[in-house]
Amino acid sequence: MTATTSPGTASLDGPIEGFWAVVPAGGAGTRLWPLSRSASPKFLRDLTGSGRTLLQGTHDRLAPLVEDRFVVVTGRAHRDAVCAQLPDVDDASVVAEPSARDSMAAIGLAAAMLERRDPDAVMGSFAADHVIADPVAFGASVRLACAAARDDWLVTIGIEPTFASPAFGYVHLGDDLAGHPGAHAVVEFVEKPSVDVATGYLATGRYRWNAGMFVVRPTVLLDLLAEGDPGFAAALRAIAADPDTLEAAWAGLPKIALDHAVAEPAAAAGRVAVVPASFGWDDIGDFDSLATLLEDTDSASITVLGDADLVRSSAATGLVVPASGKVVAVVGLDDVVVVDTPDALLVTTRARAQDVKAIVAALKDSGRADLT
Amino acid sequence: MTATTSPGTASLDGPIEGFWAVVPAGGAGTRLWPLSRSASPKFLRDLTGSGRTLLQGTHDRLAPLVEDRFVVVTGRAHRDAVCAQLPDVDDASVVAEPSARDSMAAIGLAAAMLERRDPDAVMGSFAADHVIADPVAFGASVRLACAAARDDWLVTIGIEPTFASPAFGYVHLGDDLAGHPGAHAVVEFVEKPSVDVATGYLATGRYRWNAGMFVVRPTVLLDLLAEGDPGFAAALRAIAADPDTLEAAWAGLPKIALDHAVAEPAAAAGRVAVVPASFGWDDIGDFDSLATLLEDTDSASITVLGDADLVRSSAATGLVVPASGKVVAVVGLDDVVVVDTPDALLVTTRARAQDVKAIVAALKDSGRADLT
Repeated sequence: MTATTSPGTASLDGPIEGFWAVVPAGGAGTRLWPLSRSASPKFLRDLTGSGRTLLQGTHDRLAPLVEDRFVVVTGRAHRDAVCAQLPDVDDASVVAEPSARDSMAAIGLAAAMLERRDPDAVMGSFAADHVIADPVAFGASVRLACAAARDDWLVTIGIEPTFASPAFGYVHLGDDLAGHPGAHAVVEFVEKPSVDVATGYLATGRYRWNAGMFVVRPTVLLDLLAEGDPGFAAALRAIAADPDTLEAAWAGLPKIALDHAVAEPAAAAGRVAVVPASFGWDDIGDFDSLATLLEDTDSASITVLGDADLVRSSAATGLVVPASGKVVAVVGLDDVVVVDTPDALLVTTRARAQDVKAIVAALKDSGRADLT
Repeated sequence: MTATTSPGTASLDGPIEGFWAVVPAGGAGTRLWPLSRSASPKFLRDLTGSGRTLLQGTHDRLAPLVEDRFVVVTGRAHRDAVCAQLPDVDDASVVAEPSARDSMAAIGLAAAMLERRDPDAVMGSFAADHVIADPVAFGASVRLACAAARDDWLVTIGIEPTFASPAFGYVHLGDDLAGHPGAHAVVEFVEKPSVDVATGYLATGRYRWNAGMFVVRPTVLLDLLAEGDPGFAAALRAIAADPDTLEAAWAGLPKIALDHAVAEPAAAAGRVAVVPASFGWDDIGDFDSLATLLEDTDSASITVLGDADLVRSSAATGLVVPASGKVVAVVGLDDVVVVDTPDALLVTTRARAQDVKAIVAALKDSGRADLT
């Protein structure tokens, strides 16, 4: 007897039939300079010491769910690197944007292409530079989200907050979603709050982090877009119908995040669902979060990303990245961050990790854009 | 009319007739790692950004006083580098020790050679790795010391202490020296004191730092040595009489500092004089003292030794040495020390600068002596 699954039937594991991963691979990761550069952004880097880049990790995590239904949308400058890092992905599935026009254009173009290619498609968008600790739990959440998406919901996956972060947007959970145990309606998306407001959110237990993961039928996504900006949706569908027009049409598309163009108005219209999830998620926004991700909680010493034999420390804690291959000695500093690359060295503290972007901006202004 | 000076006559400027500089050039400068290495010790480095190495600065300072009467005693491994850095010094005046046997053997050998070469010689020993802010004042002090040395005193130059340092030995001033205004008899030399004891010394106004500067007739030095260790003095004189025996005889010489072998017992015997001096002296013992030496007291920012264009900082103070040529960015750290060389990077604080030697020892122990 042969096991079969029909569209809309949730199985407990294995691929999700008709499910496509859409992976926008962009962003310079400025706060991770000098590890992350505009020419070598963080999704192309192994930031966890796993031996796989963040992009490869994203593919590894999704491949069991999508098999070869995997689309990357990236900048033209990174297309070759993306193809090289993903030898199992057909080069035709790596879409190069002529320029960066924010997430609505990138994900919307993928939606328009899938709408033509597979009428039964459900797509899920997942950033190329996030880290997830428990891929099995992730897969289960995606499976739930896909089932709700087949009923024409725009479904987001809401990450259980581990602290009152002011760096993320939040999803406000509403009632249980009929027919989809574990999913909820979304009351609203809220922008990055203050720490005080975020603390209030956590106390209610009804808020989740918005990690930008959206699972939806391509046609539903484009129709939701068309409700607010019919020209935008039509332009995306026109490009998908004649890819030769991409170059000419792209620069005229609105530069807007999918959250603003679609998710927020759709939530207000009661069209969005959320699958609350807890699978150890991190977007590695800066060296402080990278240090948290990597540190051995049992030891009060230096955490090393790279070859630990290169690092010598005494009475020091924090994160050292010996990426130039030279010996790095750290003496008498707590929560320090030392990132040594072949052409630039950063020394800061975990508490000041956010300020790194100011250094990058100053380097650009002073004619050293080559280092950014 | 031609100006002439006879031996023993003090002139106000110009060379000091019969005065020889003896410059022991040794010591790895471990606390200045990774700038200073055993293969490239601090005396061979430009640590002040002056464009001259410490050895060259020592020669520049002494040449107006000694003309070509300049002898360097250094390790065999450094002889070629010393000769290359001092093109005006005859290679025959650069004496290579077969092995490091502390200062008595090194300076005593030079004394024995000068005793044979110039019966009217007065010698002054000055370390190759010290920094002096006011060479004119230095010259005046040396001139005073030479005059006293011609009267067979062992004369030291006593540096006015600028703080209660526990890192230096001290010279205890006695009565004025008859016939040599500005010079004093020495009561005793005292070893490195505690900060409390040093504070008491400073309060009396009768103590000076011992910078290891000794001015003396070679015969007086060797005869003082012979009073405590006649065999040692005889051995040095025998080597000077037949330099071919240097290799065979050297390893048998006692390994002892000139301070212990001669200066301390001679002081007890009332044979030592001191010229108190204040000419801005520093032995650059560690990165804290280097930072003090280099810092612009008017600004609360990073001090750079090297190309300041390579250093970008925000809310940071301390010392950065961008010696590998790469950009160094420092964000949000006070009194930090960052020393970036092509094969090793040090990150520490001014307060922990002394602890750098432990890192160097650990590198040696772990098979990375190539970096020390």
